[in-house]
Amino acid sequence: MTNFPFTAVLGQDELKQCLLLSAVDPGIGGVLALGDRGTGKTTTVRALGALLSRSGLPAPVVDLPLGATEDRVVGALDIQAALAEGERRFAPGLLAEAHGGFLYVDEINLLDDYLVDLLLDVAASGVNRVERDGISHTHPARFVLIGSGNPEEGDLRPQLEDRFGLSTTVSTIADQQVRARIIRARLAYDTNPEEFLDRYAPQEQALGEAVADARRRLESVALPDDLLDRVVRLCVAAKAMGHRAELVLARAARAHASLRGADRADTTDLRAVALAALRHRIPRTPYETPSDVDARLADLL
Amino acid sequence: MTNFPFTAVLGQDELKQCLLLSAVDPGIGGVLALGDRGTGKTTTVRALGALLSRSGLPAPVVDLPLGATEDRVVGALDIQAALAEGERRFAPGLLAEAHGGFLYVDEINLLDDYLVDLLLDVAASGVNRVERDGISHTHPARFVLIGSGNPEEGDLRPQLEDRFGLSTTVSTIADQQVRARIIRARLAYDTNPEEFLDRYAPQEQALGEAVADARRRLESVALPDDLLDRVVRLCVAAKAMGHRAELVLARAARAHASLRGADRADTTDLRAVALAALRHRIPRTPYETPSDVDARLADLL
Amino acid sequence: MTNFPFTAVLGQDELKQCLLLSAVDPGIGGVLALGDRGTGKTTTVRALGALLSRSGLPAPVVDLPLGATEDRVVGALDIQAALAEGERRFAPGLLAEAHGGFLYVDEINLLDDYLVDLLLDVAASGVNRVERDGISHTHPARFVLIGSGNPEEGDLRPQLEDRFGLSTTVSTIADQQVRARIIRARLAYDTNPEEFLDRYAPQEQALGEAVADARRRLESVALPDDLLDRVVRLCVAAKAMGHRAELVLARAARAHASLRGADRADTTDLRAVALAALRHRIPRTPYETPSDVDARLADLL
Amino acid sequence: MTNFPFTAVLGQDELKQCLLLSAVDPGIGGVLALGDRGTGKTTTVRALGALLSRSGLPAPVVDLPLGATEDRVVGALDIQAALAEGERRFAPGLLAEAHGGFLYVDEINLLDDYLVDLLLDVAASGVNRVERDGISHTHPARFVLIGSGNPEEGDLRPQLEDRFGLSTTVSTIADQQVRARIIRARLAYDTNPEEFLDRYAPQEQALGEAVADARRRLESVALPDDLLDRVVRLCVAAKAMGHRAELVLARAARAHASLRGADRADTTDLRAVALAALRHRIPRTPYETPSDVDARLADLL
Amino acid sequence: MTNFPFTAVLGQDELKQCLLLSAVDPGIGGVLALGDRGTGKTTTVRALGALLSRSGLPAPVVDLPLGATEDRVVGALDIQAALAEGERRFAPGLLAEAHGGFLYVDEINLLDDYLVDLLLDVAASGVNRVERDGISHTHPARFVLIGSGNPEEGDLRPQLEDRFGLSTTVSTIADQQVRARIIRARLAYDTNPEEFLDRYAPQEQALGEAVADARRRLESVALPDDLLDRVVRLCVAAKAMGHRAELVLARAARAHASLRGADRADTTDLRAVALAALRHRIPRTPYETPSDVDARLADLL
Amino acid sequence: MTNFPFTAVLGQDELKQCLLLSAVDPGIGGVLALGDRGTGKTTTVRALGALLSRSGLPAPVVDLPLGATEDRVVGALDIQAALAEGERRFAPGLLAEAHGGFLYVDEINLLDDYLVDLLLDVAASGVNRVERDGISHTHPARFVLIGSGNPEEGDLRPQLEDRFGLSTTVSTIADQQVRARIIRARLAYDTNPEEFLDRYAPQEQALGEAVADARRRLESVALPDDLLDRVVRLCVAAKAMGHRAELVLARAARAHASLRGADRADTTDLRAVALAALRHRIPRTPYETPSDVDARLADLL
Repeated sequence: MTNFPFTAVLGQDELKQCLLLSAVDPGIGGVLALGDRGTGKTTTVRALGALLSRSGLPAPVVDLPLGATEDRVVGALDIQAALAEGERRFAPGLLAEAHGGFLYVDEINLLDDYLVDLLLDVAASGVNRVERDGISHTHPARFVLIGSGNPEEGDLRPQLEDRFGLSTTVSTIADQQVRARIIRARLAYDTNPEEFLDRYAPQEQALGEAVADARRRLESVALPDDLLDRVVRLCVAAKAMGHRAELVLARAARAHASLRGADRADTTDLRAVALAALRHRIPRTPYETPSDVDARLADLL
Repeated sequence: MTNFPFTAVLGQDELKQCLLLSAVDPGIGGVLALGDRGTGKTTTVRALGALLSRSGLPAPVVDLPLGATEDRVVGALDIQAALAEGERRFAPGLLAEAHGGFLYVDEINLLDDYLVDLLLDVAASGVNRVERDGISHTHPARFVLIGSGNPEEGDLRPQLEDRFGLSTTVSTIADQQVRARIIRARLAYDTNPEEFLDRYAPQEQALGEAVADARRRLESVALPDDLLDRVVRLCVAAKAMGHRAELVLARAARAHASLRGADRADTTDLRAVALAALRHRIPRTPYETPSDVDARLADLL
Repeated sequence: MTNFPFTAVLGQDELKQCLLLSAVDPGIGGVLALGDRGTGKTTTVRALGALLSRSGLPAPVVDLPLGATEDRVVGALDIQAALAEGERRFAPGLLAEAHGGFLYVDEINLLDDYLVDLLLDVAASGVNRVERDGISHTHPARFVLIGSGNPEEGDLRPQLEDRFGLSTTVSTIADQQVRARIIRARLAYDTNPEEFLDRYAPQEQALGEAVADARRRLESVALPDDLLDRVVRLCVAAKAMGHRAELVLARAARAHASLRGADRADTTDLRAVALAALRHRIPRTPYETPSDVDARLADLL
Repeated sequence: MTNFPFTAVLGQDELKQCLLLSAVDPGIGGVLALGDRGTGKTTTVRALGALLSRSGLPAPVVDLPLGATEDRVVGALDIQAALAEGERRFAPGLLAEAHGGFLYVDEINLLDDYLVDLLLDVAASGVNRVERDGISHTHPARFVLIGSGNPEEGDLRPQLEDRFGLSTTVSTIADQQVRARIIRARLAYDTNPEEFLDRYAPQEQALGEAVADARRRLESVALPDDLLDRVVRLCVAAKAMGHRAELVLARAARAHASLRGADRADTTDLRAVALAALRHRIPRTPYETPSDVDARLADLL
Repeated sequence: MTNFPFTAVLGQDELKQCLLLSAVDPGIGGVLALGDRGTGKTTTVRALGALLSRSGLPAPVVDLPLGATEDRVVGALDIQAALAEGERRFAPGLLAEAHGGFLYVDEINLLDDYLVDLLLDVAASGVNRVERDGISHTHPARFVLIGSGNPEEGDLRPQLEDRFGLSTTVSTIADQQVRARIIRARLAYDTNPEEFLDRYAPQEQALGEAVADARRRLESVALPDDLLDRVVRLCVAAKAMGHRAELVLARAARAHASLRGADRADTTDLRAVALAALRHRIPRTPYETPSDVDARLADLL
Repeated sequence: MTNFPFTAVLGQDELKQCLLLSAVDPGIGGVLALGDRGTGKTTTVRALGALLSRSGLPAPVVDLPLGATEDRVVGALDIQAALAEGERRFAPGLLAEAHGGFLYVDEINLLDDYLVDLLLDVAASGVNRVERDGISHTHPARFVLIGSGNPEEGDLRPQLEDRFGLSTTVSTIADQQVRARIIRARLAYDTNPEEFLDRYAPQEQALGEAVADARRRLESVALPDDLLDRVVRLCVAAKAMGHRAELVLARAARAHASLRGADRADTTDLRAVALAALRHRIPRTPYETPSDVDARLADLL
């Protein structure tokens, strides 16, 4: 199974940026991608995995399929070993597989709150602790959680949204030229995937190398004190709850700077990431649409 | 068990066309057939399977029977092998059986949303990934999903409808002549199935060959740029959400052209498939009946 | 266990006719008998089975007892064989037992919709396909489904009612003479069943032979074209939904003609079966009682 | 464990009569005893069992305890035999134990409708047919079903009430003398059960012999035609639904005549049993109390 | 684990009396202790057990812990014996353990109604009859059921309340001196339990002996006829439902007389126990508080 | 896995004090920490465990992870031993692990009430009594229960809140300087945990020693009678329900005195702990915010 190339995805720029920032700094805390159905969210996220693996970044991309049972997600008693050897042993699950990479959950708003909470908990602590079937097991599980979903089918609880580092909204593209190009590209890819991938190979490789470089340089990118002060003032002005917003903003700005090759983050970086880091953490009135919220935030930048 | 012949089904022309287009291009994404009870939906779909197999197209038609348990649908641990040999092995389910053919689900609106979603997911990706009972297994599962149902018994969620390529409404036939012919045909078939099938054999064979030919020639049928532009303008005018509508319209028009033996799709093909591709993807008011929606779409063509 | 004789049942003439027509042509599609409690529905249906078996018609009558589990209804994995021989084998259920005969479900409106649907599905296709416990098995299961129930305890969904061929309403008998005769007959039967059965043996045998003869001659009974046209016009006038009504009407009229020994069905037959074939398939207003519906239909005859 | 003597129960005359009639003719169809809590319903029913067994009538009295699981009620697969000998064998349940005697269900209105229905079904047919755990077993189960309950905790469905032969209401006794005597009797029994039982032994024996005699003579007691006509007229006047009321009335009157030593039932017997046989089968308005219903019936006698 | 001494419990006099009366006559039928949280209900009940065991009364006090499963409560199949020896044997549960003593259920109003009913049923009959897991077992289970709970978290059904012999309300103590003494006593006990227990040993022993003596003399304490008449008149005046109130009142008055060393119960005893025996059995209006009910009862004494 | 140092946590002074008091006197009864999301509750609690273990206090800190099954919490049948040796043995759970230390439950308001109750019950009695899987086992389980949660996601029942010794509210810090320092500290820790921990080692050690010393001296710290009188008067004035408030206040004041090195508790200590001990035990109106309640309490000090 091949994947549509990441660089051939048209018109979903913010989603693509959020995914790239998370690839640069997994500590940002995951991406929540909400929006219209049929806008290629799934395609884009799957493309990221292919891009990174083609670029030699050792990052598994694990899908949490609809219908995966909890024992397969967190791991469970190894029944085979229990029956054959009478021994209680741990059989690792998807969280173990995703270690060091990405865990992608489509339709995350349809998942049981309890399971979303558990995924966020493991992603935040980097540790999966299993207490079930009479076994007790702990293993590292550092991964970026990527959740996509359609808000019309039900929201995530605000408490769960807040625990995602970045959030982005995707919607149907208005430009008719772009829309026609999307159909042509998709039909071309479906007809002959190999040829299509070859055509995009150079761009894919360039972007993959940029991500790898940004990841290496990340901790050496400076976060000047006055920028941190702006981060705090922005969060206060936006009435963001808790201190997670500030930490995410600072990390995302640093990752953005690193990705553009800079040595220190500045207000450009802050502005570039502010909406994705804040829009799901500020109070909304029932009358505000998502774009009202974005506009209100943009006024503060 | 024999089946009533596809070409002897009277008066359900749009349903029959949708099924044929899906047989030509399985990538169109399945057919949703909603409508009055007692209008022969089940008969027609079962007839398609018989037609194709009589025509040498290697396409299994698998029924998802009421009461099939999830392990039989997606496959599960092979308990026999586990007990006898102490080995964890995958026992394939209906999705594996349907590979390369059709999966038919009667009363799909009575199925659990979660299972419909799973069927659509597998149908879209062509891959069935199973994570349960301590096993992890992946196998190809490319099939056309055909769902029938009675909207009076409850709707599908719009998000699920959208994921079906085509949608068609079937209703009680008004023409009394046709109705009397339907009874006579059915009584004749019930009395002597073999004789009845012999009578329709030539038509069945001709149609089967036409489908096989259209499937072979499909990718060589041209989709001119100006036709793609019309596709986009039509979707914009109809306010279809997302980009799936455009892709389905293009593919269905191409399959229609191929089925009528043409080398390039034109506006005739677009008009012939537009209602089936769009009617379940456009905004409706609560006061609009299905035929109001169809009339509104027809005005745009 | 003996049964009260069919011919000794007093005052439930329409129910008795529906059962006899189904015995003549099982393809009519089953009987739904709704009505007051305590009116002998169960007694009458059980009597039919005894009548047929006494007449040498090889027709098992299988009761679906309250509390039968689904595995016993559809059949399941043969656990004994699985444990003893490590082999997955099918253990047939009640649907297999009922093959060639009758499946009687008392209080069908208390049964899970899902199970009623399954019973109707199998009855319609004549095939029981089981997908559970890791086994996949198909066997013929042609039977007449007879459902009785009390509408005060909850209705069947219209979609389920529609799938029954005939429908009849049974109510408390008004004639006090008949009522006293019913008590006397019942007390006489309870006191000495054998003597009672001997008394009714000749009538039972005569009726049993008539059914057997009608069944043999069924397909040779003609359905003239002008009668079929009347069938369609009647269904249109009655606003019956779908095409099932017409097919059932035609078959029931033919069975009625055969039972009275005629060579061709005529309007007498049509009138005799019209209410039972149509009353559960026509639109009702919330203000109409069952007898209003019957009166409305009678006006059309 | 000893039981309080039946003849020492004070003030619950109708309940006692219903139980005795059922002991004389089990075909009457069971007793439903509804009323205030704390009025000795349970004590009285348990006393009946002791009375009968002391009188040499081989009638087991089986309690359906709160918490009995369905497999113990109807019987189930004999797991021990299945494991030890690899054989599927039937392990009989409480319905088998109750054969030939009484099955007592306290708080029957708290039981699942489904189980009440099943108990009534078996009691009516005298046959317990079990289809579960892969076994199919049938055994005779002729017993009198006695249900007690408190209507404040929820009613039985009318359809279930109707299937009980007799129904009686028990309430707190108004007479203060009787109430003081009840306390003294109970304290005396609790202090020294043996002495108390000895005191009542003669009355217990006399009543037990009367029941045994009435049971033997039952079928020889005549039910004159004009009495049956009165039975029907009474049921018509009372608007009792269905024909069960008439049959129960006739049988209860005959049992009553037999118990008082008569050779033929007359209107005295009819009047004595009419309320118990009819009060749960006639239409009530929401404003009528149970005693209004009784008064209305009494006016018809 | 030691227990706070019963005689050191301050300010819960009625609860303490109810517990002592039940210790003297277990036939009174259990104690229901409802009231404010944090008022030492649990401490008091646990102290009773310690007092009795220290006094040589062989009365086990069994806790029904939150989370006990039903099989542990009533007993179940002995799985170990079943697996090892292929034999079906009964493994006794908490009801067997409590035989001859006390069963204490904290937060009884949070327990499933069904389980409360079962506990009351066994307590009333003194017999635990188990029908489950294919086994049928009966053993004596005579115990006093003590239920505590907080009415703010939900009431017991009136039918369940009525089956408790006595009922008492506990509330926060108003006297500030007593409150300070409670803290000091508790801190002293927590710091050095042994020393604290030594200090209370004489009082504990004296009370224990009084209970033992009262239990021995119980049946010889006279209940004069005029006192029984007062009991009935009081119940009639209070409109207590059923006859259980009278029996409990008589027994509790007798136990009270025995505990104070008297040879016959008199009106002093009746007055001392009347509220506890009646307050949960008389009709209340929605506007009456528990103390209104108590006041209304007190007026009748 | 390292932990952020307790002494480096900024701005959560009351939460930190509550945790320290519980470490000094585990008999205070646990801490409930409710408040805004993203305010570092989890970090602070985890830091406490690290502080204590670094200071040589043998106090395990056990996390109750989301998804722990009940058998792992309370302990269960040791299945391995049961299968291998045919013996019923107890496999200890998290409550056994937490013995002598801390049990931390994040999102305690999302936990089943039943489980919270069970945790509080065990914490209060210091004993875990297990009755399940056919085993009966008791072991000591003295631990401090620490629950954190977000009240916007649902409250704990008042009855459960009351059973926590102390309660504290945590909210977003207003001071922008502190907020910027929090980001810098967190980024510094994430970049190089070891270096960060080294920097805080002296403060951590000093605080750890102070706790150890306070715990040793606890019982020798005097609680003068006039202070106890103030405790009672304060609880009466605040209308705290039950007597638990007074006991907690007295113990917390004593622990506070011990922690500051004093020999006797005085009103300073009382004031320092009063809000945490009382705020969750006093009546609130629906219109009062948490800070209104705090203000009302502060007026009484």
